[in-house]
Amino acid sequence: MAQQLMRTAAVVGTGLIGTSIALALTGRGVDTYLLDRDPQAAATAAAIGAGTAGRPAAPVDLAVIAVPPRHTAAVLREAQLSSLARYFTDAASVKAGPQQEAAERSCDLTRYVGGHPMAGSERSGPLAARADLFHGRPWVLTPSAHSREEAVRTALELVHLCGARPLTMAHTEHDRAVALTSHAPHLVSSLLAARMLAGDESQLRVAGQGLRDATRIAGGDSALWTDILGSNAAAVADILSELALDLNVVLEALRDVGSADPQARRRASAEIGAALSRGAEGQARIPARAPTDRKAAGQLSGASAPA
Amino acid sequence: MAQQLMRTAAVVGTGLIGTSIALALTGRGVDTYLLDRDPQAAATAAAIGAGTAGRPAAPVDLAVIAVPPRHTAAVLREAQLSSLARYFTDAASVKAGPQQEAAERSCDLTRYVGGHPMAGSERSGPLAARADLFHGRPWVLTPSAHSREEAVRTALELVHLCGARPLTMAHTEHDRAVALTSHAPHLVSSLLAARMLAGDESQLRVAGQGLRDATRIAGGDSALWTDILGSNAAAVADILSELALDLNVVLEALRDVGSADPQARRRASAEIGAALSRGAEGQARIPARAPTDRKAAGQLSGASAPA
Repeated sequence: MAQQLMRTAAVVGTGLIGTSIALALTGRGVDTYLLDRDPQAAATAAAIGAGTAGRPAAPVDLAVIAVPPRHTAAVLREAQLSSLARYFTDAASVKAGPQQEAAERSCDLTRYVGGHPMAGSERSGPLAARADLFHGRPWVLTPSAHSREEAVRTALELVHLCGARPLTMAHTEHDRAVALTSHAPHLVSSLLAARMLAGDESQLRVAGQGLRDATRIAGGDSALWTDILGSNAAAVADILSELALDLNVVLEALRDVGSADPQARRRASAEIGAALSRGAEGQARIPARAPTDRKAAGQLSGASAPA
Repeated sequence: MAQQLMRTAAVVGTGLIGTSIALALTGRGVDTYLLDRDPQAAATAAAIGAGTAGRPAAPVDLAVIAVPPRHTAAVLREAQLSSLARYFTDAASVKAGPQQEAAERSCDLTRYVGGHPMAGSERSGPLAARADLFHGRPWVLTPSAHSREEAVRTALELVHLCGARPLTMAHTEHDRAVALTSHAPHLVSSLLAARMLAGDESQLRVAGQGLRDATRIAGGDSALWTDILGSNAAAVADILSELALDLNVVLEALRDVGSADPQARRRASAEIGAALSRGAEGQARIPARAPTDRKAAGQLSGASAPA
């Protein structure tokens, strides 16, 4: 890519994700404006060096809508009506719903490309932001048939400037993928963590790193996740229904494993073993963390917009 | 504690846990003998500096039975019949079953104290062992009414020599605690990881650190975990039954969240939010990792047997 398309940007919604994007862009020399319905949040993001709080005087090259999925289309519409930018993308964790709502709200879909950076934290808000949050991480773009080529190229440049790895997917394909790899796991982790409310303190003293890892994501922002799960409910329900079936098989096996009938006992033990083996197999399918997190960032820092 | 009770030790079962204990004891100057039904495993443990492969010429001060729960009582009985040690402990992840079986097999319960070091890894075998595996970690001891005081003090010394934090519990109390904090979470993590078998590769490309953490323990040794779960089945089933109920509530809410009826939609959204909030609350109850992991080890390394 010969020329940098993005000299100026705006981030609407200065939470963890928006502020991290702004920190990355500012760090790469992009003039970045920070907007939030809470002026204090935008001021906080500005105070930690993420950019300039407030509206730009003229339209910027790209606006990133980084608000919860439920509000994405409305905020996009408003940003387009006020000519905030030439092109628009977002950072919402679901894509089909906001795209459909953007069409219903008569957004200019030629200037919009959906996006979802696959990084986050159980912490939230601008003070949890980090310029390197997206280094080496996948960042899904979901251009529609309406999206102009230059809109796609500008969104792609955003991904590269943040040090992330771009992936292109259709909206529904994206939503099914994150239901499987992020949304259903979040809910399972929450259900598991909620069980700890039934334990007394002496029981919890024996907790180890395994439990801490398995429940880490359950510490996330409940209101944001209610929105995310509600916006991708059918795909998440499909996965959890299957999990519920497996859980019932295992529960029955746990009850039979102490049976007086040796055959029932053996069968129960085999069921438990099979569930564990499938778990180990499934776990092995998950790609390891990209080894290039820091290195990729270093390689990028000299180039203006590698493609 | 004025005097070190343990100068010599034997570890029966040189897997991850047994070899890590042996490495720690050898590092603290205890003459340690390594036994395994697979002589190659004992030789491997000896080769990495965990001690001497083979039986000691005279009874040692303490024998640690580090075999799966199902075999613990039989191996203890055999070790006692062959006068392997003055005192005996074990490292099995469940305590009530092995204790009961030890009584049934006429083990000398006065010389035995149950034990469970709360550390592990998704890796297994002697080559995964580390001398510092237990640093700062809880190590539960479950002395019975029969256990002699000196047997308890010797087991306690083992815990200190390994740099762990001793906790004393009754057998059933221990088993309920680990069902909640370790066994049920393991199975939940496995069921979640098994869902990834249904995903295609392009879906798994978007997997992030949250999924990797939530499924890490699912990578453990399936045969060992079948034994552990089978040995603590009733307590694990109690917890998973509750989780199954919560899961059904959430599943229904996910189906209702797209309902045409605004009241049903609001109620569904509130149910999802409540489940997530309970998850965050439960997660907050889990004690953070002891900050003293390395420091505790350093403090211990000069003393012979701090109490």
